[in-house]
Amino acid sequence: MAEALRLGRLRKGRTAPNPAVGALVTLGEKIIGRGFHERAGAPHAEVTALGEAGVRARGGTLYVTLEPCVARGRTPACAPFVVASGVKRVVIGTVDPNPGVAGKGAAALQEAGLDVVAGVRERECRHLVEDFAKFVATKTPWVTAKFATSLDGKIATRSGDATWISGPAARRYAHRLRWEHGAVAVGAGTLRADDPRLTVRLAGYDQSEGPVRLIISSSAVVPPRARVFEGAPKPPVWVACTRRARPRTVARLTRRGAEIIMCKEEGRRVSLADLLSRLAERNVTSLLVEGGEELLGGFFDRGLVDRVVAVTAPKIIGGKRAKSPVGGRGVGRLDDALVLRETKRRSLGDDVLLEGYLADVDDYFANVTRATERLREGCRGR
Amino acid sequence: MAEALRLGRLRKGRTAPNPAVGALVTLGEKIIGRGFHERAGAPHAEVTALGEAGVRARGGTLYVTLEPCVARGRTPACAPFVVASGVKRVVIGTVDPNPGVAGKGAAALQEAGLDVVAGVRERECRHLVEDFAKFVATKTPWVTAKFATSLDGKIATRSGDATWISGPAARRYAHRLRWEHGAVAVGAGTLRADDPRLTVRLAGYDQSEGPVRLIISSSAVVPPRARVFEGAPKPPVWVACTRRARPRTVARLTRRGAEIIMCKEEGRRVSLADLLSRLAERNVTSLLVEGGEELLGGFFDRGLVDRVVAVTAPKIIGGKRAKSPVGGRGVGRLDDALVLRETKRRSLGDDVLLEGYLADVDDYFANVTRATERLREGCRGR
Repeated sequence: MAEALRLGRLRKGRTAPNPAVGALVTLGEKIIGRGFHERAGAPHAEVTALGEAGVRARGGTLYVTLEPCVARGRTPACAPFVVASGVKRVVIGTVDPNPGVAGKGAAALQEAGLDVVAGVRERECRHLVEDFAKFVATKTPWVTAKFATSLDGKIATRSGDATWISGPAARRYAHRLRWEHGAVAVGAGTLRADDPRLTVRLAGYDQSEGPVRLIISSSAVVPPRARVFEGAPKPPVWVACTRRARPRTVARLTRRGAEIIMCKEEGRRVSLADLLSRLAERNVTSLLVEGGEELLGGFFDRGLVDRVVAVTAPKIIGGKRAKSPVGGRGVGRLDDALVLRETKRRSLGDDVLLEGYLADVDDYFANVTRATERLREGCRGR
Repeated sequence: MAEALRLGRLRKGRTAPNPAVGALVTLGEKIIGRGFHERAGAPHAEVTALGEAGVRARGGTLYVTLEPCVARGRTPACAPFVVASGVKRVVIGTVDPNPGVAGKGAAALQEAGLDVVAGVRERECRHLVEDFAKFVATKTPWVTAKFATSLDGKIATRSGDATWISGPAARRYAHRLRWEHGAVAVGAGTLRADDPRLTVRLAGYDQSEGPVRLIISSSAVVPPRARVFEGAPKPPVWVACTRRARPRTVARLTRRGAEIIMCKEEGRRVSLADLLSRLAERNVTSLLVEGGEELLGGFFDRGLVDRVVAVTAPKIIGGKRAKSPVGGRGVGRLDDALVLRETKRRSLGDDVLLEGYLADVDDYFANVTRATERLREGCRGR
């Protein structure tokens, strides 16, 4: 399952609105097939893995991070294909969180006489599809907030110098994190201050296939020469604004290759809840919010953040006027602070990465837990 | 030496103006004597350890974190005592950083025919006496800056709620850190906002023996009912102010048990450099600065900080108005940020401790490095 997870992660972020999935076929000790879901419309991971194994799959075991589907979508359903392949055992990471589907694929395999185990390395397999789980449960994209600060919690010096707070290893990680999301957002202030390209610039990654670059600005007043427009619409550039934006401003951005997302207003700003709905309509299942202070403050204030990724560089910037990562209103009482769960930390060069969840991921998997329980009872009943 | 270090650390902070020292006497595999320096005027660590060993020390080995002294101070010199004890081998952590003394004790032992090794677990042994090394090299106390923030770099909510950002393990560590310093300082703003007692409240520690509680306030306007005055003058309460303080205000504080340190002014505030000199005159070899924002900013802006200890709690407070740990002016260019060296990190319950040095500790040990080299040549010459 570790190898299936690794395979699944390769395309995490690039399969929307489908989930990222990895699969492996073994016979005895030997791996005879590998697969991952590459993009919506492409074959599912288990189909690729079983295809590679071919007739050798007979009597083998299929490991798949997510339950095989029974419903025909853009590609034929997987469960019948798995049965036909002749494998005798199927090990499933997590049951499909999609409400109408959860448990049905595994049940179909059980009924066909296969030995089915569900819930293996379940936590990691759930995390692999957490965006998809939230998306199908709430029709809203998963939201990750990411920031890099000095040890004293500054994202820039008093004069706005922000390049670079973190070191090369942390910056590589930040690009990989972009890859794993459907869209990457910044506010107009950050665009003006830092002029980020918001692309994935890593060896071995196709930049043009990267996430949507999203600029959030109620007035859509964005420097037309900003680097974010380079290469648009590959990857796409979207500007989320409100009716406050002038038609001429909007027309200029369209000419630069950007697409406009007209959102509702909330306190003279882009309504972030409305924006998330509109992103979901466009099949964006996950959003990475990189800043600045005000935009992150808005997301946190409204309880819209699922995961937090923070990089701390071991340096002191100081300054009463230097910006901090999360503005907005914030909490009044410390008891109301947003507490991260499932925190993890590791070194990235000289920097420290600390991450965790604000969402209770299990909420998005409620029907998975029930379906997995039913499947286990099904096993015992046989 | 690990055990000698452990012994030495027991009284770190409580031996000023002397350094903290631990010692151990072994015969074969057996530990036959242990000692640590308890306070200025009390026997030195090696004398206690050799005293416990008694006549069994003959032919044994003495491990001592700091080079034995040759000069008679408040207690008789140690080197002759070591020779008289009959140990045949002396393992020294670090040579004494005191300029007039460095290497002399070890040389005396060598000349008496003992086998002397210097520089064993030297880095840890140097850190044990880093405050003393800076004190004798610069006539200024060692300065540690300590703060606890949320993941988004806030030390309080927008409304000033700061209790508690970090968890119980981090708070216990913070008390132990106080113990290891000669004085603990806060600004008047923090005193008003958080009303800290600044004492060491840990099982097994004598609170009344704890560090000096230092309040820094140019006007000396401090709430007379602040908890910091509880028990004064045990441990002592000092208020650092300038001539800006009114005689009546000063008199009221004196009645509350506080001692006044009248300092020079710098930009209408207490001159921190002058304050450090005055603390050194009072034999304070180390100062822990706990906040707030403005005071820490002042120390960092003036390059007066040797070590930084930061605790990060995995929670988000948010808020443009919420305070951050280091105010002041700060750096303008990111290249000028103060970069920590020898960084260490570890978990304290749910929180993460990240610490490091801004001082190049080896600067304070320059003559130690030279003296250690000479001693090694002395060994080879025999």
